[in-house]
Amino acid sequence: MSVKPVRPFSSNFRWDGVELLRYKEEGSAPFRDVTRQVLFEDPSIAAQLRYFEVSPGGYSTLERHQHAHAVLILRGRGRVLLGDTVHELNTNDLVSIPGMVWHQFRPSGDAPLGFLCMVNADRDKPQLPGADDLAELRIHPAVAAFIGI
Amino acid sequence: MSVKPVRPFSSNFRWDGVELLRYKEEGSAPFRDVTRQVLFEDPSIAAQLRYFEVSPGGYSTLERHQHAHAVLILRGRGRVLLGDTVHELNTNDLVSIPGMVWHQFRPSGDAPLGFLCMVNADRDKPQLPGADDLAELRIHPAVAAFIGI
Repeated sequence: MSVKPVRPFSSNFRWDGVELLRYKEEGSAPFRDVTRQVLFEDPSIAAQLRYFEVSPGGYSTLERHQHAHAVLILRGRGRVLLGDTVHELNTNDLVSIPGMVWHQFRPSGDAPLGFLCMVNADRDKPQLPGADDLAELRIHPAVAAFIGI
Repeated sequence: MSVKPVRPFSSNFRWDGVELLRYKEEGSAPFRDVTRQVLFEDPSIAAQLRYFEVSPGGYSTLERHQHAHAVLILRGRGRVLLGDTVHELNTNDLVSIPGMVWHQFRPSGDAPLGFLCMVNADRDKPQLPGADDLAELRIHPAVAAFIGI
């Protein structure tokens, strides 16, 4: 399938010719109100660029994996948990998520949080936290408040 | 060198901890008024994400190479030459540049054109057009007007 040379931005952070996808299969992992659009998956490029959007009140899966994420906030503002620290995020900020660091994104306020995420095309599957991992994360009050579980 | 987990966007499309670089070595290739910032060059990710900005009246190098580019317009609007066609570009549009296609970016109007470019970390060097290539490009009047040489 060949991709058009230019795919215009339409409105509300959709692009012509880019399908709006489920973030993940329902029931495969905990998350709420997240969509996924794969902007670039050119087989001649060893990485992909995806756009994720989390609606107000939603959250991405709390997870970790061997592969790293390179993130640029494209829309709105929010917070990200990285390991034992919660960071504030604004539009166009850069986020580096190293391998095996627990992470989760949440929007702030009443607007969606949208972000680009560059990732190796060939990568491992995310891991979910077990009871021991959650207990360790909850040692930090700011983290416990953030993950809300 | 380890990168901070979050690097805030400051102002005027600069980021904390990201150096403003020359686009290329002066004299190595034709270009005008282009800057380069390498946003992500994580050795564990097989691609890099760079931000290029072309000032009004400027232009990127007219070039081609085996590697592909995946581009998202982050700021302003402009035009891109891809092969024998000039395309209009607006903020957030996506541009796919396959291998060995002549390409050049120019801003429109009085504002800079800024774009993200994802590219394989391991890639070949750009080729510049020779006299025969330029003659072939200039067959198309719109291309001749665009490249201006």
